[in-house]
Amino acid sequence: MDISEDELITAIGRVLSGTGPDVLVPVGDDAAVVRGGTGDLVLTTDALVEGTHFDRTMSTPRDIGYKAIAVSLSDIAAMAGSPRYALCALTLSGDVDAGWTMELFGGMREATDEFACALVGGNLARGSEVTVAITLTGEVARGAVVRRSGAEPGDVVVVTGTLGGAAAGRRLARRGAPWTEDELHAIHRHERPAPRVGEAPVLARNGATSMIDVSDGLTRDLVRICEASGVGVRLDPAKVPRHAAAAEGEALGGGEDYELLATMPSAAAAADAAGELADVFATLLTPIGTIAVDGLQTIDDTGATHPLEPSGWDHFA
Amino acid sequence: MDISEDELITAIGRVLSGTGPDVLVPVGDDAAVVRGGTGDLVLTTDALVEGTHFDRTMSTPRDIGYKAIAVSLSDIAAMAGSPRYALCALTLSGDVDAGWTMELFGGMREATDEFACALVGGNLARGSEVTVAITLTGEVARGAVVRRSGAEPGDVVVVTGTLGGAAAGRRLARRGAPWTEDELHAIHRHERPAPRVGEAPVLARNGATSMIDVSDGLTRDLVRICEASGVGVRLDPAKVPRHAAAAEGEALGGGEDYELLATMPSAAAAADAAGELADVFATLLTPIGTIAVDGLQTIDDTGATHPLEPSGWDHFA
Repeated sequence: MDISEDELITAIGRVLSGTGPDVLVPVGDDAAVVRGGTGDLVLTTDALVEGTHFDRTMSTPRDIGYKAIAVSLSDIAAMAGSPRYALCALTLSGDVDAGWTMELFGGMREATDEFACALVGGNLARGSEVTVAITLTGEVARGAVVRRSGAEPGDVVVVTGTLGGAAAGRRLARRGAPWTEDELHAIHRHERPAPRVGEAPVLARNGATSMIDVSDGLTRDLVRICEASGVGVRLDPAKVPRHAAAAEGEALGGGEDYELLATMPSAAAAADAAGELADVFATLLTPIGTIAVDGLQTIDDTGATHPLEPSGWDHFA
Repeated sequence: MDISEDELITAIGRVLSGTGPDVLVPVGDDAAVVRGGTGDLVLTTDALVEGTHFDRTMSTPRDIGYKAIAVSLSDIAAMAGSPRYALCALTLSGDVDAGWTMELFGGMREATDEFACALVGGNLARGSEVTVAITLTGEVARGAVVRRSGAEPGDVVVVTGTLGGAAAGRRLARRGAPWTEDELHAIHRHERPAPRVGEAPVLARNGATSMIDVSDGLTRDLVRICEASGVGVRLDPAKVPRHAAAAEGEALGGGEDYELLATMPSAAAAADAAGELADVFATLLTPIGTIAVDGLQTIDDTGATHPLEPSGWDHFA
């Protein structure tokens, strides 16, 4: 590092200034202090680790910072919460300079500004690899949280946006140029995921019985809803909305799309939510299956069922 | 890792069970949800990084887990907050097994139980070194937070407990056995710091004008109070309470003691707080200097002043 720790913290504090009247003590004291809210408090933490989640030779520090905040925003959204305050525990390796670090915080600031939350605290440590650990708080009206465990037989399974773009983008970035317009869009989705912060409350208001964000792959995250809810599912893979640059396997198991996967109590509720999402956010909402009493199965176009084999991302596999 | 990610998360969830009626959604969903409090919300994050902050060949996973929580508890205490909820973003290297990981969470559970807070969420990632990033929330009555920036000329500088024990313990653990009783106590202070969670509100109630926890060394953290408050100080090094196993340099600049350094509005307020801390917690509170209009100086026993040279821990030095 080319400047001292205290100098760097002062510089970071300037990037993060203007955090609003509810921030009573911002970066620079032992802890941040914010005015308490009136609802329930949603808490999530996530780490991006160099080598595992990003590569400094492939991604800019602004993109890494943006993504670190975006993936935590997605977790808050998946509970139907509104994001409020972020903290960053940053581990830096010896070859990182102050410029890279400031750009990283610049990317975090872009994401917090875009989604109306504030980075209010953090910690710097030295290590052998860069790790960006983000904690995000959110607020939800008392009792209004949407868990993974509420899906009921007969519910319609829906997903926002398209899937497989992030996995395709990762593949295409590694392959290198030239890229088509669709391929560039996929790479952008990989670098800068779009958390469904606005869309989540719409699904909740329309009665979503369960919700999860698709971080580890559609089939894997769908199975998590089924296990938490004690139900089965009939998934129609042909209906899964696929990103224009993605292969079928990438749409079903790619991961990192940060779309919302939810169950709606009826086809009418799913259609109402789809209409509202199209009008307000121009976001697609697609029915892709039905919750069943038991059994994890896919349905093909002849109506025949097959075992659903969850594919996707096991962080320890 | 010898088991899958989902199996490990399930096992961790069992270690962390029994988190109380205010935990609406514990570990296992996209985010944790807790009932909101009535005061202001205190937020802190901190990371222990292998190689920098701990050595798996020197410390047990229980001690590492305990310490990770303890250092965050100390930050909440230094704001005069009461700890509430903890989150852990854990990065594991390939040579760590499930048993080590469960012991780590066991140590966290010991600390959260001892200080009446709850670990409600987390994240697992894979990396090349182990990093334990803890976020802790706390609550403080509206407006009751004690910052670093409130010290006024004439205030009495006080510190809890003794200093230098952790630095001595680190040195003595590396040196190896045999150890005296004092030396073993110092090693224990290094492995299991005692955050001053109960003591902090007593200092606040007795009018503490500023407060910080001694994490990076007494002189360094004292200078931080002076800079934040725009004041000077006259420190009497001879009055600094030194751990029985510590050298003078370790007491003034050792770091990691997690004692509270505060400024009190008068000698009477300092004495009242000292009496209460002695009665309730058997904790020492020692006046070690006076806040001045400007100048960072030490005073020797002849009354002569010398420039205060901050020594201590710069994470990037």
